[in-house]
Amino acid sequence: MAKKNRHALVLAGGRGTRFWPRSRTKTPKQLLPFLGENSLLQETIERLRPAVPEGHLWVLTSEELRDAVRKQLPGVPAEQIIAEPAQRNTAPCLGLAAKIIHDLDENAVLGIFPADHHIEKPAAFRKLLAPAFAAAERGKLATIGIEPRWPETGYGYLQFPKGTGAGSMASFPLKRFREKPDLKTAKKFLASGNFFWNAGMFFWRADQFLGAMRSYMPKTAALLASLPNTKDKQFKAQLAKTYPKAENVSVDFGIMEKAAAENMVEGVPAGDIGWNDLGSWNAIYELLPRDAKGNSSKSQTLLHGSTGCYVEAGGKMVAVVGLDNLIVVDTPDALLIVHRDQAQRVGEVVKLLEHHGHHHLL
Amino acid sequence: MAKKNRHALVLAGGRGTRFWPRSRTKTPKQLLPFLGENSLLQETIERLRPAVPEGHLWVLTSEELRDAVRKQLPGVPAEQIIAEPAQRNTAPCLGLAAKIIHDLDENAVLGIFPADHHIEKPAAFRKLLAPAFAAAERGKLATIGIEPRWPETGYGYLQFPKGTGAGSMASFPLKRFREKPDLKTAKKFLASGNFFWNAGMFFWRADQFLGAMRSYMPKTAALLASLPNTKDKQFKAQLAKTYPKAENVSVDFGIMEKAAAENMVEGVPAGDIGWNDLGSWNAIYELLPRDAKGNSSKSQTLLHGSTGCYVEAGGKMVAVVGLDNLIVVDTPDALLIVHRDQAQRVGEVVKLLEHHGHHHLL
Repeated sequence: MAKKNRHALVLAGGRGTRFWPRSRTKTPKQLLPFLGENSLLQETIERLRPAVPEGHLWVLTSEELRDAVRKQLPGVPAEQIIAEPAQRNTAPCLGLAAKIIHDLDENAVLGIFPADHHIEKPAAFRKLLAPAFAAAERGKLATIGIEPRWPETGYGYLQFPKGTGAGSMASFPLKRFREKPDLKTAKKFLASGNFFWNAGMFFWRADQFLGAMRSYMPKTAALLASLPNTKDKQFKAQLAKTYPKAENVSVDFGIMEKAAAENMVEGVPAGDIGWNDLGSWNAIYELLPRDAKGNSSKSQTLLHGSTGCYVEAGGKMVAVVGLDNLIVVDTPDALLIVHRDQAQRVGEVVKLLEHHGHHHLL
Repeated sequence: MAKKNRHALVLAGGRGTRFWPRSRTKTPKQLLPFLGENSLLQETIERLRPAVPEGHLWVLTSEELRDAVRKQLPGVPAEQIIAEPAQRNTAPCLGLAAKIIHDLDENAVLGIFPADHHIEKPAAFRKLLAPAFAAAERGKLATIGIEPRWPETGYGYLQFPKGTGAGSMASFPLKRFREKPDLKTAKKFLASGNFFWNAGMFFWRADQFLGAMRSYMPKTAALLASLPNTKDKQFKAQLAKTYPKAENVSVDFGIMEKAAAENMVEGVPAGDIGWNDLGSWNAIYELLPRDAKGNSSKSQTLLHGSTGCYVEAGGKMVAVVGLDNLIVVDTPDALLIVHRDQAQRVGEVVKLLEHHGHHHLL
């Protein structure tokens, strides 16, 4: 296991429903530019490129998005853009990725990264990768913890040993993976100083992960083991038949929580890398420059007696009169207006549209 | 002076800026359908048709709107659609209309009506026209008063004699025209019972009005008197040269207030005719049917955790999340979002757009 066996795998299969109506099933959040000219996926790939040997960048996405992903990433070989044959949550698809990359490089060590997060300080971020990959190379399942900035109830937490300092550039044994807490618990976590946010970044040897699957998800591990070698002509057809039978379980719940209980998990506590998961339109608003009235806009606007608003509407003139803290996103076939405090609820809109059969708007 | 000399003149030169972005300089409020299939102008003409002899319907508009008005009113002869050569407020243009119609019918009695109001009960409205025309035929300048329903500060008021009952079907001498009052005064007016709203409807003999102009606006009266007969070939060219020199004064201020002081004005106090001047988008909201959450919509909408909203957006899906009492009007090049309480301020948006040179959006 050496640096030459390091691979970076970007998870780009999400729907990003909280960014409707800009985010759609065919052009979801990770394929859109929010904070610059490049999409979040392109930014993620560029951020990782210096961290692994040339040619060791992989993307895991859905069949539906595969062509769009290839178009955005001409530098990534087509065979390294893996499409899951069906949506079965993160545990099976990471098992599949481990199998595919292991077939090619039996000493492969994988770093796994969401495609739709923003990291303000990519160089500081890359420094964390060395201790995380090193822990993986020592046979651990590793992750990166983000120093919590508020008592967020929308994230899982990683329990580090007492006294762990953010930005230590070392990995520490993790006692527990904690699921999304209630507010009271989140406040306790924040006060304790040794709980960090789980940002969904993982590091492991491919063979180690496949071993962990055999222990904790034997049914799915057996399905993967039944597949021929990736280079085999039968692979694709077999995969299409086999994969839908996999368990629909997240890697946090299916693997990491159980492995942590057996002291197999380590974490690197990040210092300030400017991490933001862009969880809603409000996160975009907060990252963009604002005028003296707290308004931020990507359109022609006339914000009259209005403050704290975010507007994007292509080339259209948008007038907002006597209203505060609105998010306005206009597209040719759908318009969203939401209070900034309620930006989390945009996902509910998408569910309702789906329920009412408006599939062309999804 | 007899019923056969009655003419109805509809004032259709306004801009309707408070209905931006639907109302534009080339298709202003009065040319748009708000409450049915017909435009407000078409509704006004149909409401008046039974009240005057056939062929006695006239429209006063601007050069810019003349073609659009003709298109909407194929039943009104082209020569009865008068375009002011320049915008000079209501006194000069009513003087011009009196001159033109007087040249054709020296016994003409005119009823003058705004093109952009809504009247829920047209038959009840038409019953008021008999006493109003009759007062005009007796040589008075007459008007119709609308029974006030709240202490509105945006309208002028007509001071009737104490004890005047709404819906009396008679005309009464008016003591005063009162300009837009402050709230305290408006409340006093409402409590007194003998103040009625000025709805901008007027009745007078053409010769009588021209005489009043000679008394109160001699400069403009002289300009009109200098014009040749309407049928003269030189009329149009002379008018174009002369008209811009007219005084820029409203008929209320320039004529009616002064005539009232000389006991020349009478008023008919309307009962419930369902009058509404459609002063803002909020007036439209209040006239349209609403669902249990107080929402009213002309579009596909998904109003999630939102109440009291009005939405029109063509064929577009509009999602409003966690917001109350919004007006949302979407058009291909401009989108308005305004709190219902602030709907009066939409006119300010148009002024600002004009100020910033966005003439294509006006």
